[in-house]
Amino acid sequence: MPHSSNLVAIYPGSFDPLTNGHLDLIERARAICGHLVVAILSNEDKKPAFTASERVEMVREAVADSGFKKVVVDSFDGLLVDYAAARGASMIVRGIRAISDYEYEMQMTLMNRRLRPEIETVFLIPNEAYSFLSSRIVKEVFRLGGNVSGLVPPAVEMRLRNRIHERSDC
Amino acid sequence: MPHSSNLVAIYPGSFDPLTNGHLDLIERARAICGHLVVAILSNEDKKPAFTASERVEMVREAVADSGFKKVVVDSFDGLLVDYAAARGASMIVRGIRAISDYEYEMQMTLMNRRLRPEIETVFLIPNEAYSFLSSRIVKEVFRLGGNVSGLVPPAVEMRLRNRIHERSDC
Amino acid sequence: MPHSSNLVAIYPGSFDPLTNGHLDLIERARAICGHLVVAILSNEDKKPAFTASERVEMVREAVADSGFKKVVVDSFDGLLVDYAAARGASMIVRGIRAISDYEYEMQMTLMNRRLRPEIETVFLIPNEAYSFLSSRIVKEVFRLGGNVSGLVPPAVEMRLRNRIHERSDC
Amino acid sequence: MPHSSNLVAIYPGSFDPLTNGHLDLIERARAICGHLVVAILSNEDKKPAFTASERVEMVREAVADSGFKKVVVDSFDGLLVDYAAARGASMIVRGIRAISDYEYEMQMTLMNRRLRPEIETVFLIPNEAYSFLSSRIVKEVFRLGGNVSGLVPPAVEMRLRNRIHERSDC
Amino acid sequence: MPHSSNLVAIYPGSFDPLTNGHLDLIERARAICGHLVVAILSNEDKKPAFTASERVEMVREAVADSGFKKVVVDSFDGLLVDYAAARGASMIVRGIRAISDYEYEMQMTLMNRRLRPEIETVFLIPNEAYSFLSSRIVKEVFRLGGNVSGLVPPAVEMRLRNRIHERSDC
Amino acid sequence: MPHSSNLVAIYPGSFDPLTNGHLDLIERARAICGHLVVAILSNEDKKPAFTASERVEMVREAVADSGFKKVVVDSFDGLLVDYAAARGASMIVRGIRAISDYEYEMQMTLMNRRLRPEIETVFLIPNEAYSFLSSRIVKEVFRLGGNVSGLVPPAVEMRLRNRIHERSDC
Repeated sequence: MPHSSNLVAIYPGSFDPLTNGHLDLIERARAICGHLVVAILSNEDKKPAFTASERVEMVREAVADSGFKKVVVDSFDGLLVDYAAARGASMIVRGIRAISDYEYEMQMTLMNRRLRPEIETVFLIPNEAYSFLSSRIVKEVFRLGGNVSGLVPPAVEMRLRNRIHERSDC
Repeated sequence: MPHSSNLVAIYPGSFDPLTNGHLDLIERARAICGHLVVAILSNEDKKPAFTASERVEMVREAVADSGFKKVVVDSFDGLLVDYAAARGASMIVRGIRAISDYEYEMQMTLMNRRLRPEIETVFLIPNEAYSFLSSRIVKEVFRLGGNVSGLVPPAVEMRLRNRIHERSDC
Repeated sequence: MPHSSNLVAIYPGSFDPLTNGHLDLIERARAICGHLVVAILSNEDKKPAFTASERVEMVREAVADSGFKKVVVDSFDGLLVDYAAARGASMIVRGIRAISDYEYEMQMTLMNRRLRPEIETVFLIPNEAYSFLSSRIVKEVFRLGGNVSGLVPPAVEMRLRNRIHERSDC
Repeated sequence: MPHSSNLVAIYPGSFDPLTNGHLDLIERARAICGHLVVAILSNEDKKPAFTASERVEMVREAVADSGFKKVVVDSFDGLLVDYAAARGASMIVRGIRAISDYEYEMQMTLMNRRLRPEIETVFLIPNEAYSFLSSRIVKEVFRLGGNVSGLVPPAVEMRLRNRIHERSDC
Repeated sequence: MPHSSNLVAIYPGSFDPLTNGHLDLIERARAICGHLVVAILSNEDKKPAFTASERVEMVREAVADSGFKKVVVDSFDGLLVDYAAARGASMIVRGIRAISDYEYEMQMTLMNRRLRPEIETVFLIPNEAYSFLSSRIVKEVFRLGGNVSGLVPPAVEMRLRNRIHERSDC
Repeated sequence: MPHSSNLVAIYPGSFDPLTNGHLDLIERARAICGHLVVAILSNEDKKPAFTASERVEMVREAVADSGFKKVVVDSFDGLLVDYAAARGASMIVRGIRAISDYEYEMQMTLMNRRLRPEIETVFLIPNEAYSFLSSRIVKEVFRLGGNVSGLVPPAVEMRLRNRIHERSDC
């Protein structure tokens, strides 16, 4: 089926780290826009497990390994809608799994709409196989010695392992 | 901002009758796709207040009055995803206002995805001014003598009034 | 503690039949207003188990038995806010137990506010002992032979019993 | 791992018809009790698509085909807790997929606990692959010509097909 | 319409800072009670953006600018219900926008009711135009350079600006 | 009624401190399994109000005072499902009071099921009298001088009091 050729969409998030649920969303978002920008919120003051540049690298590797075309990976600071406008995007894409996601997302959507009414936010539902997945739960299970293969791309799993050797707390 | 030029999206519903909340969604959906098909579920066995052809007419009038371009209004029966495929659509658009909407929509999305994985469903959040609006509440308020101007397009209000003259129960 | 002396509040509902959860709400609402009108929606076309006048009688008996002062019991048809205005009420009182209650109530509140902005709707949380109680579940349990004492006032239980003798299906 | 040997549990429902989500629950419930009774609510006044005896047969076939041991299939009328007590059960098992399920289930649990405090209700979460499945959606999709293999056991699919030949509306 | 003349109500919160959603609630609460006490939780150990006395000042200015009568602004520490009793209040007023608000509020209401059964908590729904507003989101948007006029009273906006000059992190 | 004789179940949590709601769950869980292990998550890096060994002692005292048989109290670190397997448990028991509980619990259940599919998680609904209770709210009310008798077992109340004498912040 044809897909839209010149719509630029932003898929923002912390991606700390990227999970297979995020990858599923990237693939779905790609199918409905001409260009997709995966925009990684730097968030350095929230002490992420991985630096922004590490997260950009991991997403780039996974996107390349998945063979997704027309996906750009970038990091940003500041207001999401300002970043989106600077990239020429007219759409923000978000995944929702749970009710609590939904409420927060609705609040952010209405605020973002107030700040820049010309940018629309759309929501996608990930594959139900990933309904329990979050970056937080992946880090917690990994830290406690649980197996996370199948939950994150191989490149992320490898980095989680390296991280654990460098410092005890990831 | 540019919008996608060749993506066909379907906005399905009963539209019994069209409200200003539906119109808000049509405008938002139009902004993210090349062509939008407003697809009215005939649903004649559920005894709608307006026949499918009346509903098609009302939506056409309101779309024309609003000056929306590249919006087609049609009615359908049968599986939504089969209709969408027949129209060459790759996207279904739905609005969500409330948690209960969200749960039903998630169930339908996962079922539709199973039936036709190539069609993606996206969700939009309507203007918060319409968060309390539904076709059902409009009909109930109107039937009890309440004022519905500002809640539905003028053409719908006029038809509601005519309907009430024809028969006591709408 | 002092309570407001001249505020008139409406507590609307079907009360088909009155439960002890409703009575708990009546007592709480009484504590925050000068006069309370328990307003029973006739709803005769929805085939209630008890007629509007039977429901008015049952609520009156229970209110009298509970010794609540300044509570008027009445029935109404038409728009709630019009009835409230005609009674000189400036407040509508509703109980919320569950999330699904809450969503419907929010929708009704915003619609009622649009119809008559000068009437405010307030929500009270019933005693948690009644969190599972509804008129519907009382009727269903009673119909299947379950014991409903403690869930409804004695006068209601007696009428449920008489009803069952008169006709098989209540 | 060992499982309990003498606990009798009831898994009640309409099963109109049985889905693979129900079967998943039966398997999970079996793992935590000595004997499981799948108790089909007759519900003949709600005009089910299949009679109680047809539903009993379908569940029996599917349970046999799945090789589940110590599962009894029965139908019942009246209060669930009275039926459970008559069967010597001390536990009711229910599946929850969604928030709206959860609220209704909580209400029923508290009412059932009041009627018979010695019977405990436990909730299980089905495989996420079935999170969108319900008997209602299966019937609707089937009626509209959609493919339901993989959603219901083969025996149920066959009966749905026969049903459609006998009468137009299932 | 008449309003109650001698009921004292408390509207508690952090108000860090006051938003237009809070002001909307103050106006609605005023309409249903004789005297309203806006009670600002000091909360100094949670490192608020503004001190309790700054917050009291801002609310006082906004209440004066809005011309609201019979509204007292105060700060408190300790148990809310003890403070309410000391002020002679028989009612606590809270706003609810979202499901997650609702659950927390229900928990607090039942605990407060246990501590002091004579004080009733009532809930009001703010204008839907403010459904996305919270003090937290206002601070976050402001910190990232977004425009918050229309979301907070002018006096609050001015203080947010001064704050940003004094220290980098508000 | 008979209960299962050889099923081992785990009831995990922080129990910081044990409340009467937890005790209610322990009693209900006991009724559906042969042996129950109350498994206290050490969680020392989250700075609990009581150390793991204090929490183990308090739960042991309360279990003994309540006369519950076949209940073992232990503490653990690491992955819950690994601990459960090491104890020979085939079931994890959790209480749910609220929607937000439910979503988190569903996420954990699906993750735990992926890590060890042979261990099933079941949910119980506590007595509605404890629907507002949590360890967090007990500590907060106690810290502000509120009365917590009836919310926690006597042994816990005594320790809360001692704690307050030892250090200002519990």
